[in-house]
Amino acid sequence: MAGAVNAGIKDGTGQRLDLGILLSTKTCVAAGVFTTNKVKAAPVLLSRERLKRGAIRAIVMNSGCANACTGKQGLLDASEMTELAGKNMGIKKEEVIIASTGVIGRMLPMERIRAALPKIMFSAAGGHDLARAIMTTDKVPKEVAVKTDYFTIGGILKGAGMIHPDLATMLCFLTTDAAVEPGFLRLALKDAATVSFNMLSIDGDSSTNDTVILMANGVVGGETIRMGSHKAKVFQQALEKVCIYLAREAARDGEGATKLVEVRVSGAISLHDAQVAARTIVSSSLVKTAMYGADPNWGRILAAAGRSGAALEADKTELFMGDTCVAKDGVGVKFNEAAVVEYLKGKEVNIRLNLHLGKAEAMAWGCDMSEEYIKTNTEYTT
Amino acid sequence: MAGAVNAGIKDGTGQRLDLGILLSTKTCVAAGVFTTNKVKAAPVLLSRERLKRGAIRAIVMNSGCANACTGKQGLLDASEMTELAGKNMGIKKEEVIIASTGVIGRMLPMERIRAALPKIMFSAAGGHDLARAIMTTDKVPKEVAVKTDYFTIGGILKGAGMIHPDLATMLCFLTTDAAVEPGFLRLALKDAATVSFNMLSIDGDSSTNDTVILMANGVVGGETIRMGSHKAKVFQQALEKVCIYLAREAARDGEGATKLVEVRVSGAISLHDAQVAARTIVSSSLVKTAMYGADPNWGRILAAAGRSGAALEADKTELFMGDTCVAKDGVGVKFNEAAVVEYLKGKEVNIRLNLHLGKAEAMAWGCDMSEEYIKTNTEYTT
Repeated sequence: MAGAVNAGIKDGTGQRLDLGILLSTKTCVAAGVFTTNKVKAAPVLLSRERLKRGAIRAIVMNSGCANACTGKQGLLDASEMTELAGKNMGIKKEEVIIASTGVIGRMLPMERIRAALPKIMFSAAGGHDLARAIMTTDKVPKEVAVKTDYFTIGGILKGAGMIHPDLATMLCFLTTDAAVEPGFLRLALKDAATVSFNMLSIDGDSSTNDTVILMANGVVGGETIRMGSHKAKVFQQALEKVCIYLAREAARDGEGATKLVEVRVSGAISLHDAQVAARTIVSSSLVKTAMYGADPNWGRILAAAGRSGAALEADKTELFMGDTCVAKDGVGVKFNEAAVVEYLKGKEVNIRLNLHLGKAEAMAWGCDMSEEYIKTNTEYTT
Repeated sequence: MAGAVNAGIKDGTGQRLDLGILLSTKTCVAAGVFTTNKVKAAPVLLSRERLKRGAIRAIVMNSGCANACTGKQGLLDASEMTELAGKNMGIKKEEVIIASTGVIGRMLPMERIRAALPKIMFSAAGGHDLARAIMTTDKVPKEVAVKTDYFTIGGILKGAGMIHPDLATMLCFLTTDAAVEPGFLRLALKDAATVSFNMLSIDGDSSTNDTVILMANGVVGGETIRMGSHKAKVFQQALEKVCIYLAREAARDGEGATKLVEVRVSGAISLHDAQVAARTIVSSSLVKTAMYGADPNWGRILAAAGRSGAALEADKTELFMGDTCVAKDGVGVKFNEAAVVEYLKGKEVNIRLNLHLGKAEAMAWGCDMSEEYIKTNTEYTT
């Protein structure tokens, strides 16, 4: 169940949802993946600590204020928020974790939060509101659910600053009615994040507030899912499907984005090399601006791969834009430029780079970079 | 001596200088620093090889075409260019090195180059034209000379894509009339590059074409400068002054830049930590867009430092914009926001971050990021 209200954190108008709660009817086994940034926001510090116990019931969340760089007061505020949320639901604060997103370096407006938290109402359909309540510069809410023969996995996500994802907070909350063994749940989430959210990012999860939480309450019944079982495989696949869908939608909704850019690097010596090359290409400002201009400037793509750190021999590389080969053996080939320009004008662009060195491959997602990105980020606080 | 002509490489109009030669009246001891990108342009491969011999007379250079990702033909073209340039000057091609900048993945228009190279005329004042001939998206030429009691060091530089310096080719050519021992020359250049050009960059020098060359012809006379001598110290200081000046000018002239941003990180545990933190801050798109909007959004600066990899304890950090402390012990302090906004509207912004962990410090230079950056990079080839 979930619910959200406007607490006036985002703005004073009372128009936009900015405070919400995700609540499980039963105590959940839970796992989390948090930012690797050395500057960690108060909600991250608090949630990480409480997740160590492994059993939670609810997540309280807000947008409009990140509660980061707020020192001891920030930690007190985060703790109070979980306590107030717990009171509303009749559960202990230790069963509540927390996530925040918004401007860094501002204190939470606790008076408004104290007034608004008791007003949150819960319903099974409340997830749609919750997906809206965590939006910052996102243009659309991101939601998905995948149903398998055995269980359902659902998720919501915010995170629109995907042009430079390394500083944009990504919040993602995943729920399932499956009964899952806690150790497997943690590994499953880590593996799913590696091929999805981490492939949106330059340095891994690195804003002050990045948080991905997976809650499993087991209400669907049946045996607990353990590592190595058939159901574990189904679970892993469904979870990756959910995470990749949300990651792609986040890329598509990037700040100032006009299109989704998908990069597949194959023929790498190692998975790490494939990942780092794909991420570097998709993160390059020069590649992004070329994609915005529908400019088949493929040299920028090879140059990005070349500086990524991945093992690469320039004269073995082969590059495709959509189905068109634009470079082979590291050198440009003749191609129908008008057709490629037309292709690049689409809403979804696929770039494929084959390094022809090994067998590893990886995919990364991003978006193009337009003037809108500058406008969005130029006056975020003032 | 130097000279430049329009060869029609940059455009067909014959209006802009794009091909030039830097010529020493005597054979030079020379040192070079090249891109670390695994995709290296033909002129880089050729020049690096020839510099191993250590004695050169001239550098031929062009803008408008990077001669990168051009395979064997690119190497043949680069070699032919040095041969044609050598013929013009009456010297062997082995004494000529080469540098190119511009679009990646296109072949050099050799017909035009063959026609234009013999037309280059040399003069002692030709450096001004040469500084213009290597410009791509630069708005102004970058030139400097420092005269000491013993010798003079001069330099020209191009490199305007400093918003994302990692993909923008930087070419820099330094000359001195000092007589310098080759081993010391190489070390002096490496050290000077570390505190200047490398502090403009995310990953070190990493476009396909980045090249810094230092030529010393010794015509001023006197004893050869060797490591550890008084003159060596004077030489190192003068060289760093030249390189830092050119690096700052490159930052100021960044694509779409409206101001120079200087970041000093102090109190770091190691020099490496100070450098990586300063570079990460100055490279952050979110910091850059905030600077463009004169937005004192200091949380973005701490967050960039936090993800940089440098050792950092959030609650020890202290941050200044100009002379105003905006955060202490990792938490925002009250400050005159209107005054800081006014300060950030200036043409030069200083950000100082003290980590309060150790004694190392470093400076990095960059610029803000405006809509102009997107416009400049959106249609570079088409």
